[in-house]
Amino acid sequence: MSGRKLYELCGQDPTRVFSPFCWRSRMALALKGLEFESVPWRFTETDKLAFAAHDKVPILIDGETVVPDSWAIAQHLDRTHPDTHRLLQGPPATYRFVMGWTDSVLSPGIGRMIVSDIPALLGEERAYFIESREKRYGMKLADVTADREARLPAFRATLSPLRQVFREQPYLGGAAPDYADCIVFGSFMWARSTSPLPLLEPDDAVFAWRERMLDAAGGMARQAPCFGA
Amino acid sequence: MSGRKLYELCGQDPTRVFSPFCWRSRMALALKGLEFESVPWRFTETDKLAFAAHDKVPILIDGETVVPDSWAIAQHLDRTHPDTHRLLQGPPATYRFVMGWTDSVLSPGIGRMIVSDIPALLGEERAYFIESREKRYGMKLADVTADREARLPAFRATLSPLRQVFREQPYLGGAAPDYADCIVFGSFMWARSTSPLPLLEPDDAVFAWRERMLDAAGGMARQAPCFGA
Repeated sequence: MSGRKLYELCGQDPTRVFSPFCWRSRMALALKGLEFESVPWRFTETDKLAFAAHDKVPILIDGETVVPDSWAIAQHLDRTHPDTHRLLQGPPATYRFVMGWTDSVLSPGIGRMIVSDIPALLGEERAYFIESREKRYGMKLADVTADREARLPAFRATLSPLRQVFREQPYLGGAAPDYADCIVFGSFMWARSTSPLPLLEPDDAVFAWRERMLDAAGGMARQAPCFGA
Repeated sequence: MSGRKLYELCGQDPTRVFSPFCWRSRMALALKGLEFESVPWRFTETDKLAFAAHDKVPILIDGETVVPDSWAIAQHLDRTHPDTHRLLQGPPATYRFVMGWTDSVLSPGIGRMIVSDIPALLGEERAYFIESREKRYGMKLADVTADREARLPAFRATLSPLRQVFREQPYLGGAAPDYADCIVFGSFMWARSTSPLPLLEPDDAVFAWRERMLDAAGGMARQAPCFGA
């Protein structure tokens, strides 16, 4: 056993991991070819993370080292395994923009498309999730995603920066995926794990890139429990 | 003399350079501390660029080498001057996303705010500019920018990825500006050179970053002819 454990967000099914941030770390580990044991974690299990003095997943336990936060995990993996696939090809600072776009445009956009599908996956923590998210959005979750089919074209239009990149190269990282791909892909896996809504059209360059990412690292993401949309 | 010449877009005033792409190269040269002679170029002077087998500016002449295209210029400058300020801290491919966002979100957004202010700066090429741009937008330029003050909040909202970055670091490049900053700043200098519209509010982190860029490299951009908005 590698002694490497990743605490990951799930609902009733411990194998259906759906946090965008957990997917960043999961994909980063896969790209680097590093095995890990997944430790399922639910929204309300704050006490289970007390050991890390942190209240969110992902948290990586790597031998004796505890690394909370997906961004810290990426840097940790490159530092401890410099000879396998580089996640960060330049200084970490140069990855902040793709992260800023993902966190302020892509993920909020996806959230408004899928959030009402998430409660069905949850167990005891369902009430907590619904209450906290309805407070955040200021409305019922069903209202957040109302007319989502009609809003799909506007959502897809926000992906134009990705399309510009894929005209020139197959991955954000260039000829091969790097951590920028993990960041953006994480949000798409959040959608794919939780919602049957087809976010992308098959003739979209972003769809083709997502297919490549699903097949990357031995098809790890392709094999994950998903709606497949 | 350095023997370095940069063909740059201007209108009647040869010192008021306003293409976003020319500003990328101008700022890149400034960050690297490289002197150059500016060669003014107007929209309709296609024959003046025939020597480069290229129909757009910027074009850099560096001794015996002709380098068209701002992106090629950035890579050329790092290659020929590896010991001065690095423009690209990682592989070029990792800069494509900020370029994709700038070209598909930021610059189109700025264009819809300022395009009607550009004709006043132009001379003989004014008719060409108006006709070609009205064709592109499918309407009169005055109609493109109608209600622009009312649309400013929506425009400013599109800058959220930049704000996320500036919470963590002063420049897109990290502690110091790199070519990602040149790319984004070029579009803001396009606006500042051509339009009195105040695109940014003084309490915006993007405003503060733009101030830092205006002051970078000895205040080169601060001293350029601009509306100062």
